[in-house]
Amino acid sequence: MARHIMTLTCDDRPGIVAAVSTALLDVNANIVENQQFSDEDTNLFFMRTVFDAAQDEVQTVLDAIDRSAAVEHQHLAVRPADERCRTLILVSRFDHCLLDLLYRWKSGDLPIDIVGVVSNHEDTRGLVEYYGVPFTHLPVTKETKAAAEAELLRLVAAQDVGLVVLARYMQILSDDLCQQLAGRAINIHHSFLPGFKGAKPYHQAHERGVKLIGASAHYVTGDLDEGPIIEQDVVRVTHAETPERLVAIGRDVERRVLSRAVRDHAESRVFLSGRRTIVF
Amino acid sequence: MARHIMTLTCDDRPGIVAAVSTALLDVNANIVENQQFSDEDTNLFFMRTVFDAAQDEVQTVLDAIDRSAAVEHQHLAVRPADERCRTLILVSRFDHCLLDLLYRWKSGDLPIDIVGVVSNHEDTRGLVEYYGVPFTHLPVTKETKAAAEAELLRLVAAQDVGLVVLARYMQILSDDLCQQLAGRAINIHHSFLPGFKGAKPYHQAHERGVKLIGASAHYVTGDLDEGPIIEQDVVRVTHAETPERLVAIGRDVERRVLSRAVRDHAESRVFLSGRRTIVF
Amino acid sequence: MARHIMTLTCDDRPGIVAAVSTALLDVNANIVENQQFSDEDTNLFFMRTVFDAAQDEVQTVLDAIDRSAAVEHQHLAVRPADERCRTLILVSRFDHCLLDLLYRWKSGDLPIDIVGVVSNHEDTRGLVEYYGVPFTHLPVTKETKAAAEAELLRLVAAQDVGLVVLARYMQILSDDLCQQLAGRAINIHHSFLPGFKGAKPYHQAHERGVKLIGASAHYVTGDLDEGPIIEQDVVRVTHAETPERLVAIGRDVERRVLSRAVRDHAESRVFLSGRRTIVF
Amino acid sequence: MARHIMTLTCDDRPGIVAAVSTALLDVNANIVENQQFSDEDTNLFFMRTVFDAAQDEVQTVLDAIDRSAAVEHQHLAVRPADERCRTLILVSRFDHCLLDLLYRWKSGDLPIDIVGVVSNHEDTRGLVEYYGVPFTHLPVTKETKAAAEAELLRLVAAQDVGLVVLARYMQILSDDLCQQLAGRAINIHHSFLPGFKGAKPYHQAHERGVKLIGASAHYVTGDLDEGPIIEQDVVRVTHAETPERLVAIGRDVERRVLSRAVRDHAESRVFLSGRRTIVF
Repeated sequence: MARHIMTLTCDDRPGIVAAVSTALLDVNANIVENQQFSDEDTNLFFMRTVFDAAQDEVQTVLDAIDRSAAVEHQHLAVRPADERCRTLILVSRFDHCLLDLLYRWKSGDLPIDIVGVVSNHEDTRGLVEYYGVPFTHLPVTKETKAAAEAELLRLVAAQDVGLVVLARYMQILSDDLCQQLAGRAINIHHSFLPGFKGAKPYHQAHERGVKLIGASAHYVTGDLDEGPIIEQDVVRVTHAETPERLVAIGRDVERRVLSRAVRDHAESRVFLSGRRTIVF
Repeated sequence: MARHIMTLTCDDRPGIVAAVSTALLDVNANIVENQQFSDEDTNLFFMRTVFDAAQDEVQTVLDAIDRSAAVEHQHLAVRPADERCRTLILVSRFDHCLLDLLYRWKSGDLPIDIVGVVSNHEDTRGLVEYYGVPFTHLPVTKETKAAAEAELLRLVAAQDVGLVVLARYMQILSDDLCQQLAGRAINIHHSFLPGFKGAKPYHQAHERGVKLIGASAHYVTGDLDEGPIIEQDVVRVTHAETPERLVAIGRDVERRVLSRAVRDHAESRVFLSGRRTIVF
Repeated sequence: MARHIMTLTCDDRPGIVAAVSTALLDVNANIVENQQFSDEDTNLFFMRTVFDAAQDEVQTVLDAIDRSAAVEHQHLAVRPADERCRTLILVSRFDHCLLDLLYRWKSGDLPIDIVGVVSNHEDTRGLVEYYGVPFTHLPVTKETKAAAEAELLRLVAAQDVGLVVLARYMQILSDDLCQQLAGRAINIHHSFLPGFKGAKPYHQAHERGVKLIGASAHYVTGDLDEGPIIEQDVVRVTHAETPERLVAIGRDVERRVLSRAVRDHAESRVFLSGRRTIVF
Repeated sequence: MARHIMTLTCDDRPGIVAAVSTALLDVNANIVENQQFSDEDTNLFFMRTVFDAAQDEVQTVLDAIDRSAAVEHQHLAVRPADERCRTLILVSRFDHCLLDLLYRWKSGDLPIDIVGVVSNHEDTRGLVEYYGVPFTHLPVTKETKAAAEAELLRLVAAQDVGLVVLARYMQILSDDLCQQLAGRAINIHHSFLPGFKGAKPYHQAHERGVKLIGASAHYVTGDLDEGPIIEQDVVRVTHAETPERLVAIGRDVERRVLSRAVRDHAESRVFLSGRRTIVF
């Protein structure tokens, strides 16, 4: 018996849970965890089920669900629970999110395998190599941007990457790249969306005199800073904080929010429902 | 079709979800929400299912689950989703939690019916009657305590009370009364348990110089302040706060925590698992 | 000896604290609390000092500071510490913020005197009169708006009002009225500014799938929802919350944020520095 | 002109602020920040003043304050604002707090100089040396404990250490060592004090079913886990968290709380007032 995680997105109608649970019972599988949600806005049904079953019965389960009239599925997948999400990190110069991910990965706190770090700068090479991770310097200029993105996609394919994390990567991805990475690229936005968009949000926050600053982790889409939000958090600040201090405070909340979003994705807890996410 | 909430506690073994979901499907019920949890500490399985079904099919569902070999249940119940939990509030002199519950109830924010307020003082009569709720003055002295508790139990039975809320009720209940109200009496403790127990916790907090104060809502048991915790919260304080100011700040967190616990109970979201609660 | 609160805004230069503290010492006053801040953005200095002194020495202190070369002040005032801010509340139909202010006032938790409640609807009359506060029904139509605002200003003057609270008042104030109430009118915005402005922010929040919702209390200016922010807070939500539930959750954070802002203002803790507030 | 930080603890009486501010004005110093607090419990007055002044005038200021009849001081000191607190870190095997301090120090986020790391294990040597910090392996057994503590004190003296941080150091310090390091050794307790003391607090928290877990940073005293609290924080958890997951979640809150306490201490913001701290 091995532990598996099933994820299912389908039209919402009666009989789905019965179909899934019966398919599991028929192979003597044991359900360990189960979450589900019916989104009235999209009429979609989302389900995440953790179960113990013999490895060679998984296909039987998938086939049974496939045959069920109740399940008109848009997405159905089963993965081993201990399979680690192969992750590629993109970074520019700020290394706080990068270090946090490396440390959490190394300490067993995140169910990912970091297969590489790609940066348009050399600054973080030492840190990355200290953690024993391959570092790729991939400079981006106006002229080389297309080639650089092609190389990135090549890496993603070659390394069988399931998640690309933009850990304060300061390059704007092309629409085409966003499309190709849809649903498997997470960005950390250094603001509480839909608050201050664009450049220097902490300076904007200082000028506006807000009493809380925040960060948002979201899936990357062509529409900059508008992708589906996975996780957000804020921290209280006062008038006494300079913009520089807000930036430093922001680093804390950014890394916290990003690592939570990465964990949720890596544990197959995040589902897309239109512009929103369902996070179990 | 009417909406119902099923709650189930049983031994954890394979086939429970299949049994329940098939029983529901067999009567053409539609599952709207479903939460479940397997507690490895107690080997108990907990399930809360919201479903739409014809009223006269509910007994069929219960019977089918009863017959299932997979479900060795300790608790199984179905209630209409729009049934409001009949609630009796006990209060002494502090009225912040009482007012909060009355207001939330009146504004439709809490799925309860407040059938009465009982107090060992007269202070809150005006407020209670303004909200159109019957007020019972039930003084308690050493001599009358047994009689008062008997009267309380009589009220609980006569009014078919599903929840007794101790909204800063400053009398210690007898072991026997605790037993009789087990699982349906919630107390708000004005401290972040297991922090400062006993009297004047805010003064204790001030002396100890803590940087956060909190409150805990828990089921009442004979073991004072040790009942299973349903909800907790804290708020940040500084050295500049006097004990009196801590008390005022504490009122906010107390009423917030208590109303959340009452909502959770009234929506049948709270399950007991040994000394702990499962809150869906 | 009586306790006083001094507030001072002046150009930032050396010698201010010495001038103020010496002026106080010269009349044997004792400083109990002192906060100050130099805003590098505006080069303004802000100070709030609580001191004990004989009542008839206050003018001596003010004169001494006035004479000081170090203090080029824009604002200097002393008030008795136990003077309660005369407060007028504007409300429409939603009564959660209103009740919260009434209750906190009645329980001694807010250093204000509520001299009246004005509403463009009759809905809250019963509640207001239960608390023994004069209720004025002041309907507003396109035609009567100017007259209604004039009547409001008349009330403010007649009642010597130091603070006008828009406790979910759904009328837009004219630029002229905003000007006249500048620095003494607080609005609660049912969103975490600068997030969702305009109408139905909780529905916007639901559609955008945010993971936190918030509220902001700010001084009223002609620029709708853009006045200087005094206080903000957020609360965590999930995909499972309907817009209606977000509204209910929002009520909690709105009343919490508004009451904190009112307290800060009433305790003379809020200073304006350009578009920002300094809150001691 | 250079920026300085003055810290003053003295008996609370009139004239202190005037004495200090006049002493500063007399040497043309400019006050940049000022915080003060009168503790009614201990009748002590605490003041932290940031000022710009010529370096050679500092002694003049100290002498003037010394001569003042108003200031019966228990502690008076001035340090350059850019002086970094010389810090020694003690650690055992868990490295999350250690890494956090090293990273924040390296990124300029903490005003400290880490002069060394001492551990009773070898586990963290690689990490420490990656950051270019001297690592000392100082094993402790029942027999060598006295010698190890003597060596520690020798290091503290030799390195002119202003702060010793117990970053999950799993050895109990002797009363004598606690005494010697009084007011300059900070411990992170992996629980929300006064909650779960002693061993395995996260397991205790799981068994008790708490809904929040926390951490507390406090000055080290002979009375284990009872030293004056500097900073605390909590994070929300649910019934679904295993003890192991609580430990992982706890790591986050531990490092956050500890780094804040270290910053506060290093910026001379923490004062002792009996069993409590004043944190400006």
